[in-house]
Amino acid sequence: MTDIARSLELIKRGTDEVLPEELLLKKLQRQKPLKIKAGFDPTAPDLHLGHTVLINKLRQFQELGHEVIFLIGDFTGMIGDPTGKSATRPPLTRDEVLENAKTYEHQIFKILDPAKTTVFFNSSWMGEMSAVDLIQLAAKHTVARMLERDDFNKRYTGGQPIAIHEFLYPLIQGYDSVALKADVELGGTDQKFNLLVGRQLQEAYDQEPQVVITLPILEGLDGVQKMSKSLNNYIGITDAPEEMFGKVMSISDDLMWRYFELLSFKEMKLIRAWRAACESGNENPRDIKFELAKELVDRFHGRNQSTLAMKSFVSRHQKKEIPDEMPEFELATPVGGYPIANLLKDAELVKSTSEAMRMIKQGAVRIDGKRISDSSLVLDPGTPKVYQVGKRRFARVTLG
Amino acid sequence: MTDIARSLELIKRGTDEVLPEELLLKKLQRQKPLKIKAGFDPTAPDLHLGHTVLINKLRQFQELGHEVIFLIGDFTGMIGDPTGKSATRPPLTRDEVLENAKTYEHQIFKILDPAKTTVFFNSSWMGEMSAVDLIQLAAKHTVARMLERDDFNKRYTGGQPIAIHEFLYPLIQGYDSVALKADVELGGTDQKFNLLVGRQLQEAYDQEPQVVITLPILEGLDGVQKMSKSLNNYIGITDAPEEMFGKVMSISDDLMWRYFELLSFKEMKLIRAWRAACESGNENPRDIKFELAKELVDRFHGRNQSTLAMKSFVSRHQKKEIPDEMPEFELATPVGGYPIANLLKDAELVKSTSEAMRMIKQGAVRIDGKRISDSSLVLDPGTPKVYQVGKRRFARVTLG
Repeated sequence: MTDIARSLELIKRGTDEVLPEELLLKKLQRQKPLKIKAGFDPTAPDLHLGHTVLINKLRQFQELGHEVIFLIGDFTGMIGDPTGKSATRPPLTRDEVLENAKTYEHQIFKILDPAKTTVFFNSSWMGEMSAVDLIQLAAKHTVARMLERDDFNKRYTGGQPIAIHEFLYPLIQGYDSVALKADVELGGTDQKFNLLVGRQLQEAYDQEPQVVITLPILEGLDGVQKMSKSLNNYIGITDAPEEMFGKVMSISDDLMWRYFELLSFKEMKLIRAWRAACESGNENPRDIKFELAKELVDRFHGRNQSTLAMKSFVSRHQKKEIPDEMPEFELATPVGGYPIANLLKDAELVKSTSEAMRMIKQGAVRIDGKRISDSSLVLDPGTPKVYQVGKRRFARVTLG
Repeated sequence: MTDIARSLELIKRGTDEVLPEELLLKKLQRQKPLKIKAGFDPTAPDLHLGHTVLINKLRQFQELGHEVIFLIGDFTGMIGDPTGKSATRPPLTRDEVLENAKTYEHQIFKILDPAKTTVFFNSSWMGEMSAVDLIQLAAKHTVARMLERDDFNKRYTGGQPIAIHEFLYPLIQGYDSVALKADVELGGTDQKFNLLVGRQLQEAYDQEPQVVITLPILEGLDGVQKMSKSLNNYIGITDAPEEMFGKVMSISDDLMWRYFELLSFKEMKLIRAWRAACESGNENPRDIKFELAKELVDRFHGRNQSTLAMKSFVSRHQKKEIPDEMPEFELATPVGGYPIANLLKDAELVKSTSEAMRMIKQGAVRIDGKRISDSSLVLDPGTPKVYQVGKRRFARVTLG
């Protein structure tokens, strides 16, 4: 596989669409650093892992030698709500925008390389724009095409008002690509229409159009709804290490593979091998989930923090798993010790010694919270211990 | 009738709609000069009588003491065709705009009082407008309402593209009323939508909205299509006196009454009396048409010119009406002269002397193109004369 084919494969990982792929290939083949644009809302600098799907993709471009343009769309934010209907959207001041930008940088540079990242504000060109320029920009798109955008279409046909300036915003976003001469623009799948407007405007301004790459919207911890602060199903990148670790550990196994593809920097080859191992029972998904949790905590808090967070998680988690009340047994230890399979059967945790052997093999048996893997283990008399099979069967056994 | 009721009646003459009439009444009752706005295209300063329907209405406002704002919409003209599709609409330069304005003034001050007229260019405020201001303006109107405009609606539903900047132009036109704090705006019926946008924007900018007065589109010489240069059915206000006179004389009697209402400054009372007289046969519509032709030539060229134009018209017209070939008679003059009624009967121009008497009474009898009204006229022998009854019956008669 050539370097370019390898780059293309890396870029395509986890993306929804690359439009058009041939043009991306052509741009990559020029072997020159490309300008990779991504636009961010100036009002919400508190990022969660959902946002990092895109930032991770920017990082991959950086690793391939390209230049990332982190564009803060402060122009519209500084206008506020021009309909005057919403008191909750006051215009942002320049100071607030700059402060938000600092918060962004603080967060994104945990992922991106500052040396290959340029932060732009679209107010620098839009603030200078005259009404004449804006009219000429508006002349380059039609009402009918704008009304094809899903949300506009729904509102128009549903009799919900669309103020005319709302038609100007996608044009302004697209014009940013003209001003920046972007080669590639990344965005969520919900941004596809706007990203394509950028392509179209670049052509209207006699530039080579950008390649549009859309990235899926990450599901939140519930695995169903999109990750969002308002749904409280998110992992914030400023979440404390223990909280972040615990949230990752709480996701389903299925969702774990999705998070691995979109959030991990581990190679897909390794991730696929782990998945196969889990599916064949050779690996415990929980142990693989630890890898994900560690990687993410390491990224945002440093290696030491993930070690601590994991210890704390294991300890809290195990304690939480062992109920206060459970059946108690006092058993007489045979000569030579109590074989574990017999002990589990006698403590009524399994129906047969063969079930006991199977459960041990599956990693489902713990003594005082510690998983055992040796099915020939023999127990000696001593203090009471908690024996556990699967998640719900417990017994406190004293061997006499 | 109070002065205000009289003013209102004068203002309403020949209008299509006054929206809303109560507000106009309220504004008039304040007894202060109102700002009367009318917008004109900067590209077509060659006015015809169709344009003067509106200018005449402005003059009526001036006569009532109000201030006329003659607004030249040069801002959009100076942008040209921003879609870049039409090579035929290059942007106007400032010099061209100023030159066109001079041409306008030269023409409109034949009707308007320069002392009560201010010429404005909307580029003075729109040229200074920023993209931000335009966005805030665009926020004050909705896509759905704009698509209700007839032509937009037809194009949208018919799959014809509408460029987004076309939605901005009605807003700019409306904003002119905000900038000027207009009390009243006049326009053709085809401008009603745009004029109402002005009302709505003034309210959005916390001003008392303007009253919208629409004026009918004047029919051209054919009486069917609207007057326009491209249809070549127009009377240009710079047409030479003879041409203007002849064109007025060419219109139908029905159209004449419409032109009287919309183009003449004569009182409606007089016009109604003339109409009644024509309908009862007491006046010849052609003579009344002379009054209209004279008034219009006087207005644009001066009194002396209309006298000359009329003479020239009568002479040319009569010559044209008398055919080269016609029946010829040599009649022996009785003692005491030939009574006109007998002469007309003997020359086979009427069937009876009583028909002859009636035709003379109706003004339908001419000798050498000169109408006669004396039915007791007696002719003496002499050189041949052309006798005419109605438009088509002619005879050349030599009395021996």
